[in-house]
Amino acid sequence: MANGHSPITEPAAQTSPIVISVDAMGGDRGPTAVVGGLVLSTQSFPNISFLLHGNEVELGPIVAREPDLVGRVTLCHAERVVMMHDKPAQVMRNGEGTSMWSCIESVKRGDATVAVSCGNTGALMAISMIRLRRLPGITRPAIAGFWPSRNPSGFNVMLDMGADIKAEPNDLVQYATMGASYARNGLKLTRPRVGLLNVGTEEHKGRSELKDAHDRLLTLQDVGDFEYIGFVEGGDIPSDRVDVIVTDGFTGNTALKTGEGVAKLIADVLKQEFTASLWSKLTAAMAIGTLKRLQKRIDPRRANGGVFLGLNGTVVKSHGSADATGVAAAIKLAYQLANSGFLQQLAAQVASTEHAGQGAVIKNAPSKTEGGTAE
Amino acid sequence: MANGHSPITEPAAQTSPIVISVDAMGGDRGPTAVVGGLVLSTQSFPNISFLLHGNEVELGPIVAREPDLVGRVTLCHAERVVMMHDKPAQVMRNGEGTSMWSCIESVKRGDATVAVSCGNTGALMAISMIRLRRLPGITRPAIAGFWPSRNPSGFNVMLDMGADIKAEPNDLVQYATMGASYARNGLKLTRPRVGLLNVGTEEHKGRSELKDAHDRLLTLQDVGDFEYIGFVEGGDIPSDRVDVIVTDGFTGNTALKTGEGVAKLIADVLKQEFTASLWSKLTAAMAIGTLKRLQKRIDPRRANGGVFLGLNGTVVKSHGSADATGVAAAIKLAYQLANSGFLQQLAAQVASTEHAGQGAVIKNAPSKTEGGTAE
Repeated sequence: MANGHSPITEPAAQTSPIVISVDAMGGDRGPTAVVGGLVLSTQSFPNISFLLHGNEVELGPIVAREPDLVGRVTLCHAERVVMMHDKPAQVMRNGEGTSMWSCIESVKRGDATVAVSCGNTGALMAISMIRLRRLPGITRPAIAGFWPSRNPSGFNVMLDMGADIKAEPNDLVQYATMGASYARNGLKLTRPRVGLLNVGTEEHKGRSELKDAHDRLLTLQDVGDFEYIGFVEGGDIPSDRVDVIVTDGFTGNTALKTGEGVAKLIADVLKQEFTASLWSKLTAAMAIGTLKRLQKRIDPRRANGGVFLGLNGTVVKSHGSADATGVAAAIKLAYQLANSGFLQQLAAQVASTEHAGQGAVIKNAPSKTEGGTAE
Repeated sequence: MANGHSPITEPAAQTSPIVISVDAMGGDRGPTAVVGGLVLSTQSFPNISFLLHGNEVELGPIVAREPDLVGRVTLCHAERVVMMHDKPAQVMRNGEGTSMWSCIESVKRGDATVAVSCGNTGALMAISMIRLRRLPGITRPAIAGFWPSRNPSGFNVMLDMGADIKAEPNDLVQYATMGASYARNGLKLTRPRVGLLNVGTEEHKGRSELKDAHDRLLTLQDVGDFEYIGFVEGGDIPSDRVDVIVTDGFTGNTALKTGEGVAKLIADVLKQEFTASLWSKLTAAMAIGTLKRLQKRIDPRRANGGVFLGLNGTVVKSHGSADATGVAAAIKLAYQLANSGFLQQLAAQVASTEHAGQGAVIKNAPSKTEGGTAE
């Protein structure tokens, strides 16, 4: 749905090495897909290298088969694997010795700049929280992701996509700051437009925490270096009205999965119709270039990778079902974030907004929860 | 996205007259689009007639131009119009004399069986609540709508799509009962599968009110005459896993608008790609039949019409921007609901579930709100 580019602006190749910590286990397609992603990444980034976490006995032969990876991969043995059904609280207590834990630990120690995992999202966030810790002033870290949109870059940013099912007004304000910082870095926007997701654009609509966050964002937009455009609706997510969409993790996760489901359904219907008859198959063959360009523009694998924001370290969560192309997209995102010094920019922005927020006068006191009808 | 049908099974033509009350004003395209919808409807339903509410001076000439409407339309003069920006609370107090109020009043008096309006959703719900009143035991009426899906009918049902931004566990349980009744009637399913929208399908995921509703639905599915399949995710909305998706109006409205936005973006990209070069235009001309079938299957106008459930009367909310085709789809839905005696079936089902619910033992006490990470 984009312009045929990936969301992230291609960074200039650097000579200083960039080390990415990669969890080889826990994805739906196993370590072969992950290693395939590493191979693809080395073709784009000559100075990239990897710490690869997982079972050495299993990983060794897979890595050894790839000449492109010679001298670029350090295996970090981890006996255990976090499974998709493991509960975050359990992993928090007993996760040491898993490839996911080891992957985050490398970032904590400073051996790698960014961590990438295809594993269990809740567990990854739990381990990241206890090992990397939150940035000062952040209560709830968030997962930010790129959405295909009508913007010139072809994308915008949405957060929280599912780190936490709840968000207080203060969390939403921090999401705005962090999301703007992410859009400045990833989409190269000087002053991103931030919108708060609601069921209507009128000021009287929506839940009380949204009205409260709305009032605070009006006062904080200058110090946060973004333009606050007010409430936006679900229909605005893929639009060119807004660059950063702020919402709680329950709503963001539902919107994300709904959008993916609808896109998949349409793709299937398109396929059905173009194979329904001999004539339609013939026209499909003639239109193959057009259909391939279309497929490329709506391919969700190219925008793979949610970033955990609000921690003392950068973690990229790849889709669990990512294949080599999907993993490569997540690693590309990790590389770009490492290469641009994103974490330092984010921490500085959060600190300055936090400071301003403590002094800011909130004009409207929080209103009581009101029922209301969505348009 | 459906099978080329509208969601509602075509009812057999009846000879007894069916009277639909239609608000001619308040839609984005004005009364001409509404009257165009009436004309299209008379071609499908010989025994349909209308009470048409609005300014007589404006409506008279538009209706007089249509030979198909002779003897079928009774004009009901209303001086005032509810505007899209009017607040529901104001309309509740001062709405008398508007076409919307008059439209609902005809259903209350029994002069028409179902009301249809393209106007302000919040105002329409507010007027419907105070004039028609809620069914016994219903706290929050809901808006139910059809979603394109992979089900054999091509659709499933979602509610609440935006009547109220909040829903307590008891409301969600009632939505399940009402949605199942609606799916039985509209999609001709004997025992619809009901799912509760959440950020994951595991039992430990999500907000506390969802866990509470989950426990109650497990005990109530038999008396409610539906199969409760547990939690579903955004990606399941367009799937064939579920027939009725239950959620609060904030989430439902956001999912609906996000889905529409994504579908619109893909349609635009498709159009761009098929007009990008002379060759792609040529192939588009050859594939015109395929592309038209595709367009028809993803045309949102054919599934137009949200139904207010939980009131002593049936109200269909058409999309504000509906053209004649969209209005005709909403009237078709109204006709089918009137013709099948849906309100009586719904009221009976709500009453029996309500009765059972009061006696039902809730095994798990409501748990406290827990933060949690979405997958």
